[in-house]
Amino acid sequence: MATVVLKRTSQKMPLVGFGLWKVTRSTCADTVYNAIKSGYRLFDGAGDYGNEKEAGDGVRRAIQDGLVKREELFITSKLWNTFHAKEHVGALAKFQLGLWGIDYFDLFLVHFPIALKYVDPSHRYPPEWFGDDGKVYLQNTPMSETWAAMEGLVDAGLAKNIGLSNCQGSILLDVLRYAKYEPQVLQVELHPYLTQEALIKLCKHFGIAVTAYSSFGPQSYVELGIDKGTPSLLEHNVIASISATHKKTPAQVLLRWATQQGIAVIPKSNNQDRLVANLDCNSFDLSDSEIKNLSALNINLRLNDPGDIDVQMSVFA
Amino acid sequence: MATVVLKRTSQKMPLVGFGLWKVTRSTCADTVYNAIKSGYRLFDGAGDYGNEKEAGDGVRRAIQDGLVKREELFITSKLWNTFHAKEHVGALAKFQLGLWGIDYFDLFLVHFPIALKYVDPSHRYPPEWFGDDGKVYLQNTPMSETWAAMEGLVDAGLAKNIGLSNCQGSILLDVLRYAKYEPQVLQVELHPYLTQEALIKLCKHFGIAVTAYSSFGPQSYVELGIDKGTPSLLEHNVIASISATHKKTPAQVLLRWATQQGIAVIPKSNNQDRLVANLDCNSFDLSDSEIKNLSALNINLRLNDPGDIDVQMSVFA
Repeated sequence: MATVVLKRTSQKMPLVGFGLWKVTRSTCADTVYNAIKSGYRLFDGAGDYGNEKEAGDGVRRAIQDGLVKREELFITSKLWNTFHAKEHVGALAKFQLGLWGIDYFDLFLVHFPIALKYVDPSHRYPPEWFGDDGKVYLQNTPMSETWAAMEGLVDAGLAKNIGLSNCQGSILLDVLRYAKYEPQVLQVELHPYLTQEALIKLCKHFGIAVTAYSSFGPQSYVELGIDKGTPSLLEHNVIASISATHKKTPAQVLLRWATQQGIAVIPKSNNQDRLVANLDCNSFDLSDSEIKNLSALNINLRLNDPGDIDVQMSVFA
Repeated sequence: MATVVLKRTSQKMPLVGFGLWKVTRSTCADTVYNAIKSGYRLFDGAGDYGNEKEAGDGVRRAIQDGLVKREELFITSKLWNTFHAKEHVGALAKFQLGLWGIDYFDLFLVHFPIALKYVDPSHRYPPEWFGDDGKVYLQNTPMSETWAAMEGLVDAGLAKNIGLSNCQGSILLDVLRYAKYEPQVLQVELHPYLTQEALIKLCKHFGIAVTAYSSFGPQSYVELGIDKGTPSLLEHNVIASISATHKKTPAQVLLRWATQQGIAVIPKSNNQDRLVANLDCNSFDLSDSEIKNLSALNINLRLNDPGDIDVQMSVFA
């Protein structure tokens, strides 16, 4: 299985994992179990996805049935925006580990460089973006405080690796200035409509592994009612043509575009055939010109932008 | 004279000022003197521009000749990247004030969210981007340390207002989390090829005034040999047509596009007629559709990107 070696721990992170965003709670345990059976070893979760307990159930069943051992799995989760204060980071990591039923995360990420007012998990969980009145409330917790608390998770053995998600270059560079443990991974939206070459180059320079989310572009947002008026990548003629050449699915082409550049991917699928096909995306190589043609589709189209929810959260401005 | 009121001090910042970037040292004193005579009241300098002494000479002559009083001027300068450490910020501000021959700046900005290895001014000044060996050396000074030292300038009466330049949304939001004194101004590259709507909206929300630099787009970079292959804005047919309608110069149209949106501008000119015309850019109004047509030229073209010099400085990635 193709992997990326993380710099600090030398731990191997699978290049292709399973993303748990939008995996329905009622089917999540089975989905995870079947994904493990199909060969997936990395699961990308988050407090915000609201399905960590169910994902953990799937993992536990797979371990009990002897399909896999815990140490063969790579489990990622993320700290939500409402828990950035130093007194909450450790508590939430433990709470989330409890939901999964595991005693460490392989990777724990700061979900967004956005600090929102604390919401007690007993009051509402996952807390999402808004206060009880439907408004967004920022909280003045600097990223440096959050990052120091994230480093505490490593020292406490609760996370083997820590990293960031949804960060621009300038904030990533600032974290690098004060980090005791550098971020090992940056997870960002990345697809041929949003290629982020400069950010990828920056991460490569500093030995930070990159995970792409929303590899299929607009498709990932259809069910959320987010439509920025751009044609689907899965039906795009450039992708269709490459797909026909290699006798691979458009999804496989989009995933391979990333993995062949050393970028990890975390596709989600509720369909068994597609799930298997996605995992198999490294079974062929794109030519340099195919990669270039895919990258040339870039239009800086960002589908997941909290600034669209509230101007105070314009972390991509 | 049209102004923007700064939030913390209620000080009025002129909407149109004179930018000192690339003003030749040998002519700088005369240029500043003539600009004051022509009605300019804001001068936008920086340690990096290497002409602060000469700009100060021009100011002093104008004050001596009774053209203007110090308190009628708005003098901006900037802290260079090599001076981000707390022990250097105050020393450099004093050094720069000494060059100008004044005892306070109306506005002092962090020039870039980039911390480079310290270079003693007695060794090389301005130090620019590189070490003696021509390489870029980062220094691990967090932005929070630099910002606290900037706040110290306000407390010491060395700067009436402090702000940032060349910052993205995520780092600006982080500064707001720990700031005792919030940034009053953000100065960024801004023209119809790089409209940065989300960043402008974010600043507006937080009451941070925005100053646009490089209002004429690619034109400002021709003499530096930077050519990203985009046609000049000053000769663009959309601008030419608006220019003809209003019987104003293309430069005035480009400046008015910004000022009419409440964004301050700091054009530079070595030509007396153009210098006068630039200052007069608020003498007409663009229609809403003209502003929209100008904004529609946006192609996210960033001409001033330190990431082009060295990947380690990719603060716009």
